[in-house]
Amino acid sequence: MTAGRPVSQVGEFALIGSIRNLLGSSRVRSSGLLLGAGDDTAIWRPRPGRTVALTTDVLVEGVHYRTDWSTPGQIGHRALAVNVSDLAAMGARPRVALVALGLRGDEPDRWVFDMYRGMLALAGKLHVRIAGGDIVRSPRAQTISVTAIGEARPGMELRRDTAKIGDMIGVTGPLGLAAGGIRLLEHSDKTADGAPAMLKAHLEPRPKVLAGLLLARAGVRCAMDLSDGLLGDLPKICEASGVSAVLEQDDLPIPNSLRWNFPDWFDLALRGGEDFELLFTAPPEVFARAADLFRRFGLRPPIVIGEAIAPAPSGPRISMRFTDLHRDVIEPGAFDHFAPSPALA
Amino acid sequence: MTAGRPVSQVGEFALIGSIRNLLGSSRVRSSGLLLGAGDDTAIWRPRPGRTVALTTDVLVEGVHYRTDWSTPGQIGHRALAVNVSDLAAMGARPRVALVALGLRGDEPDRWVFDMYRGMLALAGKLHVRIAGGDIVRSPRAQTISVTAIGEARPGMELRRDTAKIGDMIGVTGPLGLAAGGIRLLEHSDKTADGAPAMLKAHLEPRPKVLAGLLLARAGVRCAMDLSDGLLGDLPKICEASGVSAVLEQDDLPIPNSLRWNFPDWFDLALRGGEDFELLFTAPPEVFARAADLFRRFGLRPPIVIGEAIAPAPSGPRISMRFTDLHRDVIEPGAFDHFAPSPALA
Repeated sequence: MTAGRPVSQVGEFALIGSIRNLLGSSRVRSSGLLLGAGDDTAIWRPRPGRTVALTTDVLVEGVHYRTDWSTPGQIGHRALAVNVSDLAAMGARPRVALVALGLRGDEPDRWVFDMYRGMLALAGKLHVRIAGGDIVRSPRAQTISVTAIGEARPGMELRRDTAKIGDMIGVTGPLGLAAGGIRLLEHSDKTADGAPAMLKAHLEPRPKVLAGLLLARAGVRCAMDLSDGLLGDLPKICEASGVSAVLEQDDLPIPNSLRWNFPDWFDLALRGGEDFELLFTAPPEVFARAADLFRRFGLRPPIVIGEAIAPAPSGPRISMRFTDLHRDVIEPGAFDHFAPSPALA
Repeated sequence: MTAGRPVSQVGEFALIGSIRNLLGSSRVRSSGLLLGAGDDTAIWRPRPGRTVALTTDVLVEGVHYRTDWSTPGQIGHRALAVNVSDLAAMGARPRVALVALGLRGDEPDRWVFDMYRGMLALAGKLHVRIAGGDIVRSPRAQTISVTAIGEARPGMELRRDTAKIGDMIGVTGPLGLAAGGIRLLEHSDKTADGAPAMLKAHLEPRPKVLAGLLLARAGVRCAMDLSDGLLGDLPKICEASGVSAVLEQDDLPIPNSLRWNFPDWFDLALRGGEDFELLFTAPPEVFARAADLFRRFGLRPPIVIGEAIAPAPSGPRISMRFTDLHRDVIEPGAFDHFAPSPALA
């Protein structure tokens, strides 16, 4: 249990004061922030000629995180990471973030500070400034709302509706690690083969900011981040762009740790969410240029997992060429967050 | 009770689709929005040379609104209004907003649509585009998180730390109407003298966008919006600017409806929150220019309620010259939102 006085005893205004001190003492490279926490709004100046990318996400205690699974710092890290991941998926450079906390009132103040410290540690690595926010009373469930704001180059944004027939389909990293991490936490099994990578993928996901910037620079125009699993997210690109997709089973980057530990590893990899790797499509020459750029900047090059093809007469669909070379249409599978979750009920 | 199917039966993806249709069909004057709901982020282009004002606020059911007091449309209106009010208080022009809903799952889908319609009606009047957002499951308490984004002119922002000794202190409208509205709702008394104006002030507050723009244009540099009551908010300007304030009791714009209905009308007017009028300070010649501009644009000119003076040796404080001409230091009073609220428990 984290020490400290309950937030309700500390009082709203003292708590806000302490958080402002935390924010003020965090130094990051210039972000264009002219006025931070403490006034009616933050004031920020984007670089001339850039467009502004805007995204917001709410994390609800018991639905998106569990205080018995994650440290406060990991929760803060994750809340910022999932938002910045959306900027990365747009090819945008993250600059500032706003944070609105809904607190039950019985949290120790230390919990809140540690949560902020985890968020600020990631913000520092990403050169993001926390520009302010809000604290409200939310007696029945703690919530963390983050808005992330970044800069993109006009016309170079990575959209979902720009996949073309003949594009290669790529991902920036392995599939299913985060889902494996949740499974291990459910079974209180932290010693399985490959557990550290799986746990870290769920508890402290790293948004793929550099990868997004390099994809945009290479000329890629279509991408999104994997938050609902490959078979939940790829259909969104196919629908928006009016293409079908063929995946190659043998090319899917499914980690051995998944195969070793879970009999349903294939579903876990394809339908498990929150990997926050980038899924993108690009013509072969652009794909090659992206792979070059990734190597030059010290990233593992993206992995080809399939191809965008003409849609079926009935509309876009996803099929897979299996190891035995037979090809089958596969059911898209997005996790409906209003259905009770087996993982985080 | 609002009709419609429970959100949990409609499903997350169908619900998001319906909301996108609502958003897409709302047309407002150009806001610089290049890409709205449906991708990883929104893409927005501020006008060249402007700074970007950013603010976020969360409304929690039972804390900030009650579904038995407000219609869904009023709740949507209010969620946007309280955020835009922060932009107004900065002298910024609101442009786009992001909305993240935390839904219990048992709300009828119709409730969600009506909430959005109320928000979109206000957005249309303010020329604001809802640029996207998020829907998450929040089984224990409904929440509405809004981020409002606007444009300001560099150096013309209305900050809290720019009050000067000798400035006049002004407000843009009456004090305490919203607190009176809450009191009437608590007592289920909707027929009191002046009830409509009080109820409307609480249920459908109008952010003072034009007033904020005109203050900035007149040369005012110090303002905030009244969300914690005059005696909760004026101390924030005094602390940030290092000045004391003297208020003139006879000049405070306290509506007769408050005096008639509530024995504690004076406290209600000075300590009751959420009026969303603008509180500002300015040298007399700037104040006069602002009053002129207000008249030209059809607004009631702002009201002088006091003066900024040199701080006491112990620091900034607030005093009041009462009707009988005696002058007394008065206790600042901000409502601590972690203390259980008698109004919205």
